[in-house]
Formats: sequence, structure tokens, C-alpha cells
Amino acid sequence: MQLKTRILGIDSGGKAIAFLNKNDADEIGIRASGRITLKIGKRSLTAIVNITTSVRRGFIGINEEIKKHLGLKQNSIVEIEIATFPKSLQSIHNKLTGRRLGFDEISEIVRDVVQGSLNENEISAFVTALSLQGLDLDEATGLALAMVDTGKQLDLGKKIVVDKHSIGGVPGDKTSLLVVPIIAAMGLTIPKVSSRAITSAGGTADRAESLMPVDLEIPEMEKVVKKTNGCLVWGGSLDLAPADDIFVRSEYSLYIDPLLLPSIMSKKRAVNATHLVIDIPTGRGAKMQTIGESDFLAKELIELGRRLGIHTQCILTNGERPVGFALGPALEAREALAVLMNKSFVPDLVDKVCHIAGGILEMAGRKNGYQLAREALRTGKAEKKMREIIGLQGGNPKIRLEDLNAGDEKYMVRSKNSGEILWMDNLSLIEIARAAGAPKDKGAGIIFNKKFGDDVHQGDVVYTIHAEKPRKLSRAVELLSDMEPIGIGKSYEMFIHKIKESTVIKRSFTIER
Amino acid sequence: MQLKTRILGIDSGGKAIAFLNKNDADEIGIRASGRITLKIGKRSLTAIVNITTSVRRGFIGINEEIKKHLGLKQNSIVEIEIATFPKSLQSIHNKLTGRRLGFDEISEIVRDVVQGSLNENEISAFVTALSLQGLDLDEATGLALAMVDTGKQLDLGKKIVVDKHSIGGVPGDKTSLLVVPIIAAMGLTIPKVSSRAITSAGGTADRAESLMPVDLEIPEMEKVVKKTNGCLVWGGSLDLAPADDIFVRSEYSLYIDPLLLPSIMSKKRAVNATHLVIDIPTGRGAKMQTIGESDFLAKELIELGRRLGIHTQCILTNGERPVGFALGPALEAREALAVLMNKSFVPDLVDKVCHIAGGILEMAGRKNGYQLAREALRTGKAEKKMREIIGLQGGNPKIRLEDLNAGDEKYMVRSKNSGEILWMDNLSLIEIARAAGAPKDKGAGIIFNKKFGDDVHQGDVVYTIHAEKPRKLSRAVELLSDMEPIGIGKSYEMFIHKIKESTVIKRSFTIER
Repeated sequence: MQLKTRILGIDSGGKAIAFLNKNDADEIGIRASGRITLKIGKRSLTAIVNITTSVRRGFIGINEEIKKHLGLKQNSIVEIEIATFPKSLQSIHNKLTGRRLGFDEISEIVRDVVQGSLNENEISAFVTALSLQGLDLDEATGLALAMVDTGKQLDLGKKIVVDKHSIGGVPGDKTSLLVVPIIAAMGLTIPKVSSRAITSAGGTADRAESLMPVDLEIPEMEKVVKKTNGCLVWGGSLDLAPADDIFVRSEYSLYIDPLLLPSIMSKKRAVNATHLVIDIPTGRGAKMQTIGESDFLAKELIELGRRLGIHTQCILTNGERPVGFALGPALEAREALAVLMNKSFVPDLVDKVCHIAGGILEMAGRKNGYQLAREALRTGKAEKKMREIIGLQGGNPKIRLEDLNAGDEKYMVRSKNSGEILWMDNLSLIEIARAAGAPKDKGAGIIFNKKFGDDVHQGDVVYTIHAEKPRKLSRAVELLSDMEPIGIGKSYEMFIHKIKESTVIKRSFTIER
Repeated sequence: MQLKTRILGIDSGGKAIAFLNKNDADEIGIRASGRITLKIGKRSLTAIVNITTSVRRGFIGINEEIKKHLGLKQNSIVEIEIATFPKSLQSIHNKLTGRRLGFDEISEIVRDVVQGSLNENEISAFVTALSLQGLDLDEATGLALAMVDTGKQLDLGKKIVVDKHSIGGVPGDKTSLLVVPIIAAMGLTIPKVSSRAITSAGGTADRAESLMPVDLEIPEMEKVVKKTNGCLVWGGSLDLAPADDIFVRSEYSLYIDPLLLPSIMSKKRAVNATHLVIDIPTGRGAKMQTIGESDFLAKELIELGRRLGIHTQCILTNGERPVGFALGPALEAREALAVLMNKSFVPDLVDKVCHIAGGILEMAGRKNGYQLAREALRTGKAEKKMREIIGLQGGNPKIRLEDLNAGDEKYMVRSKNSGEILWMDNLSLIEIARAAGAPKDKGAGIIFNKKFGDDVHQGDVVYTIHAEKPRKLSRAVELLSDMEPIGIGKSYEMFIHKIKESTVIKRSFTIER
């Protein structure tokens, strides 16, 4: 059936949705929530059907996703038919019953995901099946390659392209804001692509955005990297592995992430990285809680890297508490800038940065990586490089610490007892920062007046919550009533907690990509 | 945030979808495909967000699902906020990790499914997890009860209410069209609720619809049953177990059905059935291929029935070939009516009908059930009862065989060799009937001129394909080129088939509910 398009200006968050008149739908024999194929010339797309009275017979209402994908205009003529079941459904069913998937099957699934031929139910079933049945390294390799094939790539034509990644989970981790300029200052190419916060109080892209625009397209990114050796951009608009952006929607609310490995590695492969260091924060309150688990993950990442032609090393770091004194996009950007400017010394942050940057430098053949990284900071080379990158990405290269303001609304949390800081609870601190407005309100977050191991007297300010809006500050402060984000006591105290009649439910969370 | 409703007249097939202006969405902090809660008075509903330019600031576009569920009008004021993660997500996650679900958790999941608080991804993950992790009888009982609790019920106030069910899969199975009038004629109450075809060429509701309207609401259904003891209605608009209608969407394309047991039994419980006979067609080409599998399913159904207070028996029947000589809604209705009128004798159909009706009669305390059923047919009592039901459901009680027409377009398939009919392939026959237009075109389908065991000479007409539209007839005939729906040969032939380099892929399918 041929129908004329009507552009409805509706954004459905990535899903192709078509709006049909009831009579046309009956004629085709399709019901609401069924799938149709739209064809124009050689292009085609599968869309979900909604039935509406507000589109006349002979017309088809299309949302922005369809318009963009097929390049349609008002009154374009499209050919409509009922979509047949994609063959990849049989492969998903095979995985459900426990069979291994071959590369052809994986490629087909990924292609159908990107083209919209599989609906959310089916994608979610696939992700769930992967989570329950597991996937072996051949399958992970296949998924990574298929995700690269269906996305864009950055090809700088360089022999060595380095990269870093963190599996995340640690609040206040602004490591990348320092590693990128150090590495770029040392003459290596590091086209860093980051994510925004999903469950955290800020991703690297959110932090970097306090300093400069981060939503570049591939040609702009290429220009920045060619001139400065580095960049700090958001991956969301680059389309490096569009399938992954769809898979992650299924994983997010279910707290599962079977696609972690291919997800990370596909994006590194898409920027043609040759050498990669992956940070695996480990410990209580981190995503990986034991060194054994982290070692196992590292082994898999390294092997997957090998298959994809990426030399990979993993560095386990202490993930039991926030990094540095600041948490929240602008506060963290300010802390990073202060370290680059040698205006403040943040020992845990600098140690982590130098281990990771040093690891990258040594992979690329330099000696004494840790010392080289320290030097790049001390001599101001890293600061100079960061300002170049900021300028080329469209920010103010002369940005000062005073330009990065904490939210005006603040609340100081004082200690109720004396002792030392025994622990800091990552999840609670993230929740407080999010309630205060992070990452959306750039100035929201937490400043730690005391850190792990510090002595504290009753009444001392332990940390300060910042917000941009009074309402959000109160929301954050309200959380404190049934939360103990920082533990202060004597080091001999043994008691953890008691389980009474109702059991404790622990909320899991997703690993950042 | 308070917004005024704008009714958009969009039917999204059961999903609550709200359309927000970009600026309002930013203000709330929600993105396209995120979830919001709409509140008005004491009622609330979770909906998926689409962003649109065609709804002005201060307004919220709502689809028919939202309008109906919250009883909204044009310009109603609703309170909007970001939906929090439902607690049931944690329970789904628990099932994913292999834990058993308690009744509270199951109730909460089912309630959230019906209220729209869980999205398709999450529902699909739940169904997939059930399929992979399995569910025990406690969980199945909990699911059945929760599905009944969230739906409507039919309460006739009778001490004995009987019912029958078939797990389906056998083409041409018009058994219910005969069992219902027999049972009702014998004075027992049988409020039969049926489904339409999903993957088959016709469900009982499609067949019955050739004789009378079947989309009754509960009060109308009640009226018919009170007057005639029986009815033949479609379950789709009765809302007996709305959660199941949602679950089945996830299962359908994935060829899984972990919810089979609770799905069947919840609907029987919702009509307050006390005695139930379940037909389990068994054999090659049926859904249950071995007697062992069927016996195991029967045991589970009976035990679940016991827990729900429904006396249940299962009858295994031969499911290796079509029942009777007709396949397709009108053709099957005509065959059933002809048997009721004693105008034709269809031995396999009558044998099956009398076993099932007889089983029901005996459960209700009658003796010689099989003979009683045969008598009800022979004496015309069943026909008289069927005409009463047809009349009360709004059909023509005087309907004649000539009123039930096969499609005018027809194609006779002749035998290429001589021998006897060795087998009939259910799935291929269904595919041909669907291609010819069944169940949408009521007159489309197949008439079998020969049946299993018949002798055939080269050139004899084996079966005739009927269609209403020439285009659909050609489509059905085209299928024959690479299909052998009926096997004709000598009974001593041993060869099945040879596996060469590319392997055979068998398509699975879902059990009817």
C-alpha cells in the first residue's frame, strides 16, 4: 500500500513509530503495536504501528526517527507492508535455549537491532538470555565487531593510538581530565570518548562539559585530535556503536550488563585504538568487590583486546571511596584544573592519574611512565595541552578556577562524634549528589572537608553539600536522615550490623561503559 | 508539574504514551522514552514519554490508553512527575539471578505490569527469566491468582461450572463448536471463552464468528449463559486476565511460553470454573510430540487446578493431522454445523468431541459420558442448543449450511503418484491456509478430499485450497513449490530425509491459550 507521509514532529527516544489511520491499518491487516516495513527507493525501515484518528486515510504519520532514517519529507510517498519476522528471532530463540551463536547470527541480530527490525521485547529477551546463559569470548568478539560494523569509525591513520577506560562506579573520579592532557603533551594520540552519567553523579563527559563543549561530531573531533593529539568528547552523538546505545536501555533498569565487554571494546576499536589501559576500581562499594573478580574481568578484557587487535592492560585501583575532595561536574572540573595548574595537590587523584598515564606511556615504549606523568604535571605541560584542547573544542582556553562555581546553596554536615573516618559509602554519596542536582545542575555536588583516615572531632565539618536550587538542597539534606554516607569511629570497633526479622535488600547497579 | 490534557486519538496497542512539549520535558528533567507518573485525584498511571513540537507548553498529549485508564477529558488537569523505579524491578532482578519469587513479589510484578509501571524491556526480561530459570508450582499458582486479581471475573453463582480447553496446534480443530452445545444441552453450565488465531489459521473465536458475534462483554455473556447454559465468546474484550494479554506479546515472537500454565488456569478461574477438561493434542507435528511430555504437562495442569480449586482432567488426543475435512473459519463452522444437523458424519471429529464432552459429563457425575454426547448429537438436542446460543449472541438462529460459503477462488491439488496418505503436515497446512487468507478472510482455507489412510491414485484431487481473493490464492499456491504438506506413498517406504552440508532449521511455535 502506498501512503503519503505526514511529519508529526514527535521524538520517541530512538524508536521508529508510524501512525496509521484505522481504515488503512485494517486494510493492511495490522494492529496497534504491530510492525510494518516502510520502503522508499532502496531504503527501508521497520516501524511500530500506532492507530490514530488524526491521520487521514492515505496518509501515514511519521515521527522524527523515521523521518531522519529514511530522509523523508512532507508528502513523500512510501510503500507500506506488514513486516515479516526477522530471521534473527530464531537466533535469539537459539540463545534462549542455550546454544552458542555463530558470527553470522550475531551480525544479523546486531544489524536488526540497529535497523529497528527487532522490537524492545525481543532485544530485552536477547540481553536477558545473554545474561543468564552467558556468552563466551567468541561471541563477545563477534558482538564487538558487529557493533563496530554497524557504526561510524574514527580513522586518524596513525600507527599508535592510545586510549584509557574505567569501568566506573567511583564518585569523584576525574582521572581522564588529567590523563588525556598528560598523554597528549607527551606526544601520543589519545582520542578520548566518554559517556555522561547514567546512574552516577557525573560521567567524564559531564565533567569535561564544565570546561568546554563536548558534543562534537566525528569530523570536528578528528580536527581537534590532529592538532592537539587529544580530545575529551561525548560518545552520545558520535554513533560509534549505535547498537550498544540500544542494548544499554534494556540493561539499565534490570541491573544486568552481559554486554559489558563487547560494549567497552567495540568503542575502542571504533576509534582504532592500538594500546589501551583499563582502570578497574576494586573494593567494597565499587562495582568489582574483590581482587579475584577484577583479575578475572581483566583477563577477559585483555583476551578480547587481543582478538580485536588492541594491546590491552588493566590496572586495579582502590575503589572503596571517592577520588579527591570534589564530587559533581563543575566541582570536579575545578579540582582537575587546580591540579593541572599546580594550585592544589590531591594525592590520591595524582597517584591514580600517574599510574594510569604511566601505564599508557610504558605500553607505547616510554620508560618510567609514572615519573614522566608527574613531570608533565609539574612542568605545566599538561595544563598547556589541556588549554589547547579546551580552545579547539570551542571552550575558553583561559578559563580560571573562579569560573567554575559551586552552587550557592550549601549545607555543611558536621560530625556527631569524635574518631577517625573509617569508611565512605560511594552509593550514598552519589545519591546525595544526585538529589542535590548533579549532573544536570553543574554546580551541584559535594566537597569533602575530611577524607578517609583523617581525625575528626565532634562538630567538625566533614563534608559540604552544594546545590543550585534550594528545593534540591533540601531534597539532598532529607536523605541524610536515614543514611550514613561516612563512618566516623574508633578503629577498634567491630560491629557491622544486625539482621532482624525483615531482611536487608541491596540494590545492584550497572557498570559504566 | 501540572499540565492540561490534549486528547490525541492515538491507539498504541495497550501502552500508555504521553506526548510532552520539549521545554516541559526539560523542566521535569525527562527524556524521550523515559517514564512519568500521571496523577489525577487518587488515580495514577505510569506512561512512556514522547517529545513533540505539536503539543504546546503547559499541555500534555495523551493517547487512548491513558484517557481510558484515568478517565480523562480534554483539558483535564493532571499532575506529572518522573516515575520512580518500581520495587518490582528488584524482584525481576532476583528471578534473573535464579531466586524463587514469593507471592507478594509476584503480585507486585503482575500489578505493575497491568498498571503500566513496568516497560516492555522489563516485562520481556521477566518472561525470559521465567523461561530460562523455570517456575515452580508455587510460583505458577501465585501468578495465576495475581492475574485473576487484576482482571474481571464472571460469577454465575452456580455450584458447578464446567469448561474445556485445548492447548491447540492442530489445524481444523472445531471441537469446541460441538462440545459447548452438547454440554449445555445436557444441562451443565459452560461459559466458553476462546481466543482468536495468533499463529494458526483460526482460533475457536474465529470459527464461532462465522456463526454469530463473539465479542461480548461480561454482562452480555452472563445473560447468554443464564438463558442457554453456554456461550462461545472471544476472550479479548473480557479483560479476564489483562496481565496475560501483555505477557503473551513478549512470548509470541520469541516462541517461548513459560506462563502457559498460569495463563490457561487463570482464565478458567476467572470464570469460576469448577470442573475442567483439557485437551492435549499429542504427536508428530503437534505442540507436544511425545506422550511422556504430554503426561508431564497434564500432571502440572492438574496439580495447579487443585491449588486453584478447579477439578481438572486432561485428555491426550491424536494431534498428528487435521481434525475433520475442513480448515478455515467458515469452512470449519460449516462442518461443525453439518455434524450438529446430522447432515454429515466426520468420524475423527465426532470421536474427539464425544471423548471430551463425555469426560466433562462424567466429571459432573453423569455416567456413560461418551454415549450421552453421541445421543445429544443424534437427537438434534445439541443443534437446537447451538441455535439458541447463536440467536442470543446476536446471530441468525436459522443459519443454513449454504450461508457459510467457501471462498470462490479455488485450486485443486492433485496427487503426483499413487499410494496411500501416509502423513499430513500440520504446520505446512496452516501456512497454506494463512497464505490463502485465513483467518481474516472467513471463506479462505482448505477442504481435504482425501484423509490419512485413504488410497489415492495419481491425478486424484487430494485437497482444495479456497480463497476470497485471487492474489491470496496465488500466494498460497506458490508455497506448494517447496512444500510437501501431505505425504503419499507406500506404507513400506523407510526413507525420511538426508542431511547435507547446510543443516535443517526447525521453526518452533507457541502454545495456544
